[in-house]
Amino acid sequence: MTPAQTELVAAARRFGGARAAVTDPTDIAPWLTDWRGRYHGQAPAILSPASTAEAAAIVCEARALGVALVPQGGNTSMVGGATPPGDGSALILSTRRMRAIRSLDPAGGLAVAEAGVILAELHEAAGGRGMRFPLTLGARGSATIGGLVSTNAGGTQVLRFGTMRRLVAGVEAVLPDGSIHDGLSALKKDNRGYDLNQLLVGAEGTLGLVTAAALTLVPAVAARAVGWAGVASPEDALALLRRMEARTPTIESFEIIPGASLKLVVEHIPGTRAPLAGDHPWHVLIEAASGDAEAPLAETLTALLDEAIEAGLVADAVLAANEAQAEAFWRLRDSLSEAERAAGPAAQHDISVPVPVMPRFMVEAAAALEAAFPGSHASGFGHLGDGNVHFHVRAPAGMSAEQWYGDVAPRATRMVHDLVVAAGGSISAEHGIGQMKLGELERLSPPAHLAALRGIKSAFDPQGLFNPGKLVNLAPGSQPT
Amino acid sequence: MTPAQTELVAAARRFGGARAAVTDPTDIAPWLTDWRGRYHGQAPAILSPASTAEAAAIVCEARALGVALVPQGGNTSMVGGATPPGDGSALILSTRRMRAIRSLDPAGGLAVAEAGVILAELHEAAGGRGMRFPLTLGARGSATIGGLVSTNAGGTQVLRFGTMRRLVAGVEAVLPDGSIHDGLSALKKDNRGYDLNQLLVGAEGTLGLVTAAALTLVPAVAARAVGWAGVASPEDALALLRRMEARTPTIESFEIIPGASLKLVVEHIPGTRAPLAGDHPWHVLIEAASGDAEAPLAETLTALLDEAIEAGLVADAVLAANEAQAEAFWRLRDSLSEAERAAGPAAQHDISVPVPVMPRFMVEAAAALEAAFPGSHASGFGHLGDGNVHFHVRAPAGMSAEQWYGDVAPRATRMVHDLVVAAGGSISAEHGIGQMKLGELERLSPPAHLAALRGIKSAFDPQGLFNPGKLVNLAPGSQPT
Repeated sequence: MTPAQTELVAAARRFGGARAAVTDPTDIAPWLTDWRGRYHGQAPAILSPASTAEAAAIVCEARALGVALVPQGGNTSMVGGATPPGDGSALILSTRRMRAIRSLDPAGGLAVAEAGVILAELHEAAGGRGMRFPLTLGARGSATIGGLVSTNAGGTQVLRFGTMRRLVAGVEAVLPDGSIHDGLSALKKDNRGYDLNQLLVGAEGTLGLVTAAALTLVPAVAARAVGWAGVASPEDALALLRRMEARTPTIESFEIIPGASLKLVVEHIPGTRAPLAGDHPWHVLIEAASGDAEAPLAETLTALLDEAIEAGLVADAVLAANEAQAEAFWRLRDSLSEAERAAGPAAQHDISVPVPVMPRFMVEAAAALEAAFPGSHASGFGHLGDGNVHFHVRAPAGMSAEQWYGDVAPRATRMVHDLVVAAGGSISAEHGIGQMKLGELERLSPPAHLAALRGIKSAFDPQGLFNPGKLVNLAPGSQPT
Repeated sequence: MTPAQTELVAAARRFGGARAAVTDPTDIAPWLTDWRGRYHGQAPAILSPASTAEAAAIVCEARALGVALVPQGGNTSMVGGATPPGDGSALILSTRRMRAIRSLDPAGGLAVAEAGVILAELHEAAGGRGMRFPLTLGARGSATIGGLVSTNAGGTQVLRFGTMRRLVAGVEAVLPDGSIHDGLSALKKDNRGYDLNQLLVGAEGTLGLVTAAALTLVPAVAARAVGWAGVASPEDALALLRRMEARTPTIESFEIIPGASLKLVVEHIPGTRAPLAGDHPWHVLIEAASGDAEAPLAETLTALLDEAIEAGLVADAVLAANEAQAEAFWRLRDSLSEAERAAGPAAQHDISVPVPVMPRFMVEAAAALEAAFPGSHASGFGHLGDGNVHFHVRAPAGMSAEQWYGDVAPRATRMVHDLVVAAGGSISAEHGIGQMKLGELERLSPPAHLAALRGIKSAFDPQGLFNPGKLVNLAPGSQPT
């Protein structure tokens, strides 16, 4: 620990007592490696303020001492965004002790949660009051509100409710100069200049520490209907989605699944079976939901699917007859990654393109990859209506994992990213940049865009103390580690 | 004209031909004074690029020459935001020749419009394809897309569709360094760092020139129902809105009107009559709309109002029997400002507070103002569900307009703003800061907030060439003119 770090630890304990800083290596160890075990960092201490005021005091002191800080919530980043640098030059600034749900107003549809509140806790608290926070994802038992805000999280309900950016009604944060930005009052209309709340959403902790957020709630789900349809192409799937959205606002999920991927699931995952009798090149899983228990969702979905069959858009379709069948449909979708993994090593990509472009992109990009990497198998599945599919490239049969991951997969990934950029898309749909995609962001962004990112970063954090090495490098042209 | 300005005019003509710069004082004059005739500026030329590339070339040259620019669309700012400085130090950079609707995709619900497209033109173009751009306001015949984006415009449909910020799916802009920010691809999910699109929304032309925007469309209105209800208090009105929103997503407008203001309308505006027989302390005007022609809106609204009467929330209510009656209801609402003006000089305020606070604020702030300014009459009306009411303070009977506007009204305005800030609200709900509210913004914002605004401004426009004297002063502590 450097003398400045030692001084900062002492200051944190002076502000917040013994629990405000952890220095036992055993307690620190679990927080030095990311969720998927790909990044390993070092940090001589974890600072854990219990309140926004304590956090501000720590940041003021860190600024004076020139100590770098890595904000951390549930440590579930997919891009190494919360893993400290390997040289121990930064301390972790954890929100884990800021766990209060400060308010929950069902009538106003608003909750104010501190950064360390775990997503599942917020779901439960909202559910207990007849409401729902309409954002969910696999890591909901660990991911925290502060991290979800800072990474503009997505998930499976974006089609209807948008990403975190749209659900955030206000943000409280400690900025790198130690000041507190209080944007929690959740005004529906406020035109007093640049929107700092929106700037902090997705900033990955590089512009300060998000300490709390005001979040939009919607009525709890009182009725749902789940359907499965076989279609000829991604174009038909998108046309089906458009028809449905034009007729009902209740469509929450619309997931596309290639026929070959469904076969992998049925082959590799015990107890699964295909919902439809015949073979179909593509499948879609559709969920409609409502806060009104009497909403005739099954009738609506049936009528829309019948019309689509008559119009030639859908080959065959079935509605889940009960909750067990609905869960079985979702299990097929949720087992896709596991089934793909069982079939061999793969490179996975979190990408998006404009929605109208997505159907063609899925087919053409897969063909291009398979041509460039003979024997590989490329496919996309997931959130068609968001323009965001999980695009997987599976190693040719017989290729060792070492050869694939060491040499071939990185080239395949660069090719996927090049195709995405050519289609006007994003190399990071949901997961952010972190440290994993910093090099690709710099390779693929116009210089003016990188200059704007650096300008904002410098304006807020001229010393570069907040989450160094993530999202944006301060020095122009510098290379990520 | 300074030598540098002369050179810039010549460069603009070199890039874009004779029409790219206007120097005839007669042609310039109408653009030197704001919409309400409160601000008068000077500019020796108007630059009018016909394309984004031309605009970028002009901005590059202006930067090299150090010439300040005032972006201007329809010149309908309510806060002097598009009026050039009085000393002729800046040229106007007009978007009036960038008038193309580049694309309009009904299925995808998206239009890409250039900055100079007038709002009414976009309404018409969308309507012709069975769609609607769900933002409208009084100046729709003059206001341009670039200005609406740059001021995060609101209007009467914010309750359901949000402000411009939520409807903007992408922005194209020329940044002060002359680079083009191309954010038009309208990705639903994109996590590549700070959101420059959202930063440009509401920036009032101080971070560059918005040249085009990708905008969300919704299905055209195929059915609507309009109701009128008498209620005892703003609290009851808000409770009524909450009940309705929980039961149907179709509520588009929910306007609150004090009983005394309605009386003024009936008294001063020929051909108007109150919709309900008895006296009520407060009234609400409710509109439900749907893109589905068969949506049973009248039945739904009737049922909800009947339930509210039974629950004691509503004293009396009536549904417009036909379009003429619906228009008559709206005319009452739209005549409020005119009736208030007929009753005497008034100070008007564009303010917002958190929605749950608004009912009490309306009553308590009005009482406080009337106590502080004996004989004055204070009242709020408008968009209760947005936390945004038009708060008027009318001069005491017999006070001259000179005395009121010269001395009393400014003090009343400062008091209103103080009360708004104390309630966690905004001194600019819809209109922005421009030059009119710059002093109040600096008086009432925490230093850290102003420092963050200045930091962003400096990062994008270190020379301070874009819309100088609006929204943010670069030098800390400097006073607005």
